[in-house]
Amino acid sequence: MIIKDFSLAAVPAGIKYRDRLDLGLIYSRTPAVAAGVFTTNQVKAAPVLLSIDRLKQGRCQALLVNSGNANACTGREGMEAALETSRLAAEALGIPEDMVLVSSTGVIGLPLNVQAFENNMAPLVSSLSEENFEQVAEAIMTTDTVAKTVAKSVVIGDREVRFLGMAKGSGMIMPNMATMLAFILTDAQISFPELNRALKASVERTFNRITVDGDTSTNDMVLVMANGSAENPWIEDDQSPDYELFKDCLEEICKELALKIVEDGEGATKRISIRVCGAKEDSDAEQIARTVANSNLVKTAFFGEDANWGRILGAMGRSGIRFNPDKVDIAFGDALIVKAGIAQGSEAEERAARVLKNKHFTVCIDLQDGTGCEEVYTCDLSIDYVKINADYRS
Amino acid sequence: MIIKDFSLAAVPAGIKYRDRLDLGLIYSRTPAVAAGVFTTNQVKAAPVLLSIDRLKQGRCQALLVNSGNANACTGREGMEAALETSRLAAEALGIPEDMVLVSSTGVIGLPLNVQAFENNMAPLVSSLSEENFEQVAEAIMTTDTVAKTVAKSVVIGDREVRFLGMAKGSGMIMPNMATMLAFILTDAQISFPELNRALKASVERTFNRITVDGDTSTNDMVLVMANGSAENPWIEDDQSPDYELFKDCLEEICKELALKIVEDGEGATKRISIRVCGAKEDSDAEQIARTVANSNLVKTAFFGEDANWGRILGAMGRSGIRFNPDKVDIAFGDALIVKAGIAQGSEAEERAARVLKNKHFTVCIDLQDGTGCEEVYTCDLSIDYVKINADYRS
Repeated sequence: MIIKDFSLAAVPAGIKYRDRLDLGLIYSRTPAVAAGVFTTNQVKAAPVLLSIDRLKQGRCQALLVNSGNANACTGREGMEAALETSRLAAEALGIPEDMVLVSSTGVIGLPLNVQAFENNMAPLVSSLSEENFEQVAEAIMTTDTVAKTVAKSVVIGDREVRFLGMAKGSGMIMPNMATMLAFILTDAQISFPELNRALKASVERTFNRITVDGDTSTNDMVLVMANGSAENPWIEDDQSPDYELFKDCLEEICKELALKIVEDGEGATKRISIRVCGAKEDSDAEQIARTVANSNLVKTAFFGEDANWGRILGAMGRSGIRFNPDKVDIAFGDALIVKAGIAQGSEAEERAARVLKNKHFTVCIDLQDGTGCEEVYTCDLSIDYVKINADYRS
Repeated sequence: MIIKDFSLAAVPAGIKYRDRLDLGLIYSRTPAVAAGVFTTNQVKAAPVLLSIDRLKQGRCQALLVNSGNANACTGREGMEAALETSRLAAEALGIPEDMVLVSSTGVIGLPLNVQAFENNMAPLVSSLSEENFEQVAEAIMTTDTVAKTVAKSVVIGDREVRFLGMAKGSGMIMPNMATMLAFILTDAQISFPELNRALKASVERTFNRITVDGDTSTNDMVLVMANGSAENPWIEDDQSPDYELFKDCLEEICKELALKIVEDGEGATKRISIRVCGAKEDSDAEQIARTVANSNLVKTAFFGEDANWGRILGAMGRSGIRFNPDKVDIAFGDALIVKAGIAQGSEAEERAARVLKNKHFTVCIDLQDGTGCEEVYTCDLSIDYVKINADYRS
């Protein structure tokens, strides 16, 4: 799928490795309405700080993104490098500097090689094409094993509105944006307040519900650019049916990308949904689900395909949320293994063990204490996770 | 070393494995003044609940402890089993039931085999001896690779006051008591309020400063029994020099045991001290140190002997404590690798890399923003940690 008036390009610029796509450009022929969500880590990389600042105007026209170097913890020189690369792109594209956003992922703490950007800006801009979405998705990969893209469309006011989304992220993934980049392009005509609201709501229920290792990165960024080329009736009211259609489609895009990130979690062999119901409040359910989803002991048991509900109950107990352990039900898929705090015996264990052999499954925890409900997505903790992270300077 | 009027025994009772010491007994000829600290996990195992209740009187005479089964998440039957095993010990020793504490470690969620206790109570009691301290330390091991014991003495009022401490703990270790048991015997004459205060203070600065995997268990317990046989002048005033001598020695015991636990962390190859200075408050320093000490990305980098300060700064940034990244210094041992937020180049990296080859080292983080200081002890996250926890139903 292509989206009219968005063109893209990627080149191997040698930022960290040779002969690997590592520099990408997304360009909208007309200035796009744009909204973003950024890392909550107070140590923010230079490109994050610059993009936050520039997005205040609610518009942008280009995004320059690289892998191989995060340009994080690089001080004043890092900010100068981010500014310089955006200037190079703006000049080559013939647009104002403040319409260029920048984004980086990779090693922390090393100076960004601005020369590599300079050397490659001309070929990058000259190869811009509507067809290159997959190439940019590839250029932003670090320890990712697959490029992650999603395409969807929805009819709004008789016009087909298209969405293309890409994401990267594999380690340092934790609720509230972790080494994770996602860029979503759409041709919708939508005003900034509605675009911003739809993005924040979608991210909260998707990217902020996944965890790989509980670490939150310095460089996270989700960006949506809407260039209006679909010429649908302007979406300017967040109570309108058109807004709902747009927002639902955006949230689906975000959810699919988020799940792809979990599935491609560093070393992951399984994706697990942790669903907590019966809590007093949704926020209680979320806190318990997050604690379980981040427990190394729970995650290694998933890797070992061990239906170790004792570790789940142990993690719940340190979540800080009060509940009555004697009322808790725990099920792996459809295998109810604990009822009212008591193990259900070897037959239930065997059924649960079969569920754990799947690549995807859900752990349902019912506290029997209210209507609060929430779901978080995680992956297992494998030997390869340790190998990857003991070897890779990220 | 032995301590007068304390006798101990351990037998292989077949609670989980055959021919392995798994049932231990500690007995004081006279009722001992006793104080304890227990898991903060709200899911507490039956033996923990029972021992908390019985310790309210500030005295006990015997401790019955088993490995192989945690008797946790076992409901009403679990409590009945804990009561029954304490009854068996009380009868065999000829002491009141409420003077017997119980402690268990091992698999969660399986019924405790009370028959194994019944079959072995007579041989256990008949083999009580002052010499058997090491055997009990061995009987409480689970995934531990070495038994952990410490002996110390201090002169108080011309009398030698002795201390013997044992601990177990290897995984599920995290500040605030995690699958960790520690039992300390002393012949000091000390009243309950002072004993209790000395223990709580010592635990806070030792056992509560270690972390292996951020998980807090259902069964943790630190117990100190003081039987008075040293006949030192009674310690009854926490402002007295004698109290200070006692408390310092107790804290040293706790610290040595705590460090032994970290060194024997599941799969650990290194012990690392994370020291944070220059914070606004001690509690800020502690929060940052704990976040760094529990970061999987930091811990896998330690395993890989990679002086990856970017991950440390990243973890600090999500700690919830505000600081200025541009003022932060980070040193590995004596190798200052980051100064005022900026990397110090390849020579500093090389010096840091040499530090990381050691079995023990310290990471010093200076926020340059105050006098708050705190230290936390952690270990690396290795491939063996995953292997152990993917295989072991604990």
